Amino acid sequence: MKPSEPSCRDVLRLSHHPLPTVRIGFIGLGNRGLMTLERYMQIEGIEITALCDLRETNLRHSQQILKRYGHPPATTYTGSDGWKALCQDHTLHLVFVCTDWLNHTPMAVYAMKHQKHVAIEVPAAMTIEECWQLVETAEKERRHCMMLENCCYDPFALATLNMARQQVFGEIVHGEGAYIHDLRKAYFADENEGGFHNQWNRSYATEHTGNPYPTHGLGPLCQVLNIHRGDRMTHLVSMSSHQAGMTAYARKKFGPDAPEARQVYRMGDVNTTLIRTQKGKSLMIQYNIACPRPYSRIHTICGTEGYAQKYPVPTLSLDTHQIPLPAQQQEQLLKEYEHPFTTHIGSQARRRNLPNEMNYIMDYRLIYCLRNGLPLDQDVYDAAEWSCLTELTERSVLGGNIPVDIPDFTRGAWNKLSQLEFEGIPEGR
Amino acid sequence: MKPSEPSCRDVLRLSHHPLPTVRIGFIGLGNRGLMTLERYMQIEGIEITALCDLRETNLRHSQQILKRYGHPPATTYTGSDGWKALCQDHTLHLVFVCTDWLNHTPMAVYAMKHQKHVAIEVPAAMTIEECWQLVETAEKERRHCMMLENCCYDPFALATLNMARQQVFGEIVHGEGAYIHDLRKAYFADENEGGFHNQWNRSYATEHTGNPYPTHGLGPLCQVLNIHRGDRMTHLVSMSSHQAGMTAYARKKFGPDAPEARQVYRMGDVNTTLIRTQKGKSLMIQYNIACPRPYSRIHTICGTEGYAQKYPVPTLSLDTHQIPLPAQQQEQLLKEYEHPFTTHIGSQARRRNLPNEMNYIMDYRLIYCLRNGLPLDQDVYDAAEWSCLTELTERSVLGGNIPVDIPDFTRGAWNKLSQLEFEGIPEGR
Repeated sequence: MKPSEPSCRDVLRLSHHPLPTVRIGFIGLGNRGLMTLERYMQIEGIEITALCDLRETNLRHSQQILKRYGHPPATTYTGSDGWKALCQDHTLHLVFVCTDWLNHTPMAVYAMKHQKHVAIEVPAAMTIEECWQLVETAEKERRHCMMLENCCYDPFALATLNMARQQVFGEIVHGEGAYIHDLRKAYFADENEGGFHNQWNRSYATEHTGNPYPTHGLGPLCQVLNIHRGDRMTHLVSMSSHQAGMTAYARKKFGPDAPEARQVYRMGDVNTTLIRTQKGKSLMIQYNIACPRPYSRIHTICGTEGYAQKYPVPTLSLDTHQIPLPAQQQEQLLKEYEHPFTTHIGSQARRRNLPNEMNYIMDYRLIYCLRNGLPLDQDVYDAAEWSCLTELTERSVLGGNIPVDIPDFTRGAWNKLSQLEFEGIPEGR
Repeated sequence: MKPSEPSCRDVLRLSHHPLPTVRIGFIGLGNRGLMTLERYMQIEGIEITALCDLRETNLRHSQQILKRYGHPPATTYTGSDGWKALCQDHTLHLVFVCTDWLNHTPMAVYAMKHQKHVAIEVPAAMTIEECWQLVETAEKERRHCMMLENCCYDPFALATLNMARQQVFGEIVHGEGAYIHDLRKAYFADENEGGFHNQWNRSYATEHTGNPYPTHGLGPLCQVLNIHRGDRMTHLVSMSSHQAGMTAYARKKFGPDAPEARQVYRMGDVNTTLIRTQKGKSLMIQYNIACPRPYSRIHTICGTEGYAQKYPVPTLSLDTHQIPLPAQQQEQLLKEYEHPFTTHIGSQARRRNLPNEMNYIMDYRLIYCLRNGLPLDQDVYDAAEWSCLTELTERSVLGGNIPVDIPDFTRGAWNKLSQLEFEGIPEGR
């Protein structure tokens, strides 16, 4: 399913009538969903009126959260078709999907078909077919489909986006991002010990390779490079190392003869993907969750006059300044280019001691834009572009590291906008 | 020229009769050559009896160096065929080649054909054809052909090699290396201001792309992975960003209409190359000399039980230790696994305040092995394998980032040795 002609007009900068109060339904209230629900207790102008999960415990915990924060109880849905019933609730404006990866697109598509805006956890889709389904449905139903890429609201990422816009890096030629996170413990833990429901992600790793989780590294870079707003990703090549990390961990934890240790995991430990854009920029995206190494999303931006990298230590290097840049000057620069989101919204999170300001800014912005009838910060094309690596990297790896084309999900409209614009940016300091 | 059958037996672990005093001739006494000559003033058991350069000034400076350190003057050679005459000097054992890249192989081959061992600056060869010439000639003439990859003697690289041998990282799955060095100033400087003779390297960048200088990042990783000693690199894919850094710099320095600013440079600013080995390991190698960023060779080693990275800050992360590893423990570990080369040879360099201990260890080891009739630390297959990326990365980039096979320069003997062994390692502490 890759339509050569758009079935209807694009949803670039889609906006709707303002919704004074956003009525939300949640599907998936496990690890991530419960955290998301609790985060939303900090957001104004919402009502959470529907909750859906397979497990009664999760629904009970969710109602307790609502109660603790003085919200009325929500209608609950459960069973294998509970999520469909939730989507059919005509009082809802927005459906959150925080389930396992494989259910993101089917649920989002169904919700949009029932006139709901959707907010989907990363990745939004696991195949090219699913990416097209999201795009097609959003276009046909004229609905918002936002993938919840929180890393776009990281203070360093936002500051470097700001610097990029103000030409601090000169002409940008290259970027790097990653999801490097030692998840071995969680992959082999029971659900009540921080593991995943039915260990769905380990099960995915037995059947797939490539990079199944590319969006945290890629999203902020695509914003800097204005992907589908003047440039577009044309193709990629991807390479995975062999698998050894999961097996070594399972052998140690369960013994060499345990099923977990004898299981074949197709997912190579380290995936590295190179992407090229129409304008000739290169990107490198990595994935590694099975080795003991420090957390990193890298976040490198490399231009003709400046360079930034977040991990392992925030680093700026600019032609206009002393090289290496003294720590104090770097701090001053990061303050000078601090993004208004960080200054005005992130600061609220810091004042309230909320655990992760990028989540708060993301939640705040989504609801702010819906309440004010503004286009969202991330659109369905972002969701498709950032998620499509899941299938394409696997295809490149299985094909012997061959180049694979990246679809133009805008079907020719990638050059219509000149850059990413956030609407309703707070002003002043 | 890629012989399917070896013309004669391999030179794996080649050794010769001990040479009590190594008589050396130098070709190329510009920037790097003059520094090399001066370094050799610290090395015992050598005589420098022949010097060759196109410029009388360089020869004069060289003789002054010899004089300053109490060495007798050397015979000098100049003119376009001077290097051939030097190679014909039957009293020499070893010829050093420190010229521009394009002359490395022709001179090394000619010297070997005249029964000299050769030590060649990096990269040893610029094409696959040249790589084969080095291998074929070394095998036919039974000569040592060592590429001067000094980064293999970096203290952190040696410590991680030591750790890898002792299984500290578990099973290694992935490695990363780079040559990231802002050389814009040198590329556009006159020779007397630290530029290169006739700006040969800028001229190379007008005609080529890919990664022309891969060996500093790749060499230490190949030693860790025992390349051609139990594993081999099978293929690579390579991607370059567009070029903008050289032009931006030239416009600023010379004005937008200057020839340097209007020149077309084919070399993309950032090259990233992915390599896979027979055993399934992946390597990432980068090149970037045209952007303002901190120097880095990365040097990442990623295994099932441990992780190391040198740049931007030395980092170890081990399953057997607290994560993140406290700074003091990391220092202790690096001391515990310090390589005997660092302990016994590097310490001499530090005591004498020599500028770069990895150069001293390299020089010391080359002469030590020749004087003791031992195989060298780096053989002609290393030189060919590490240098062949120059042509192969360009081929992949120009072909649209296609996979390109890496020749087996050992012609089937890559599995004959089980790991890299250094001979005559100093013992004790």
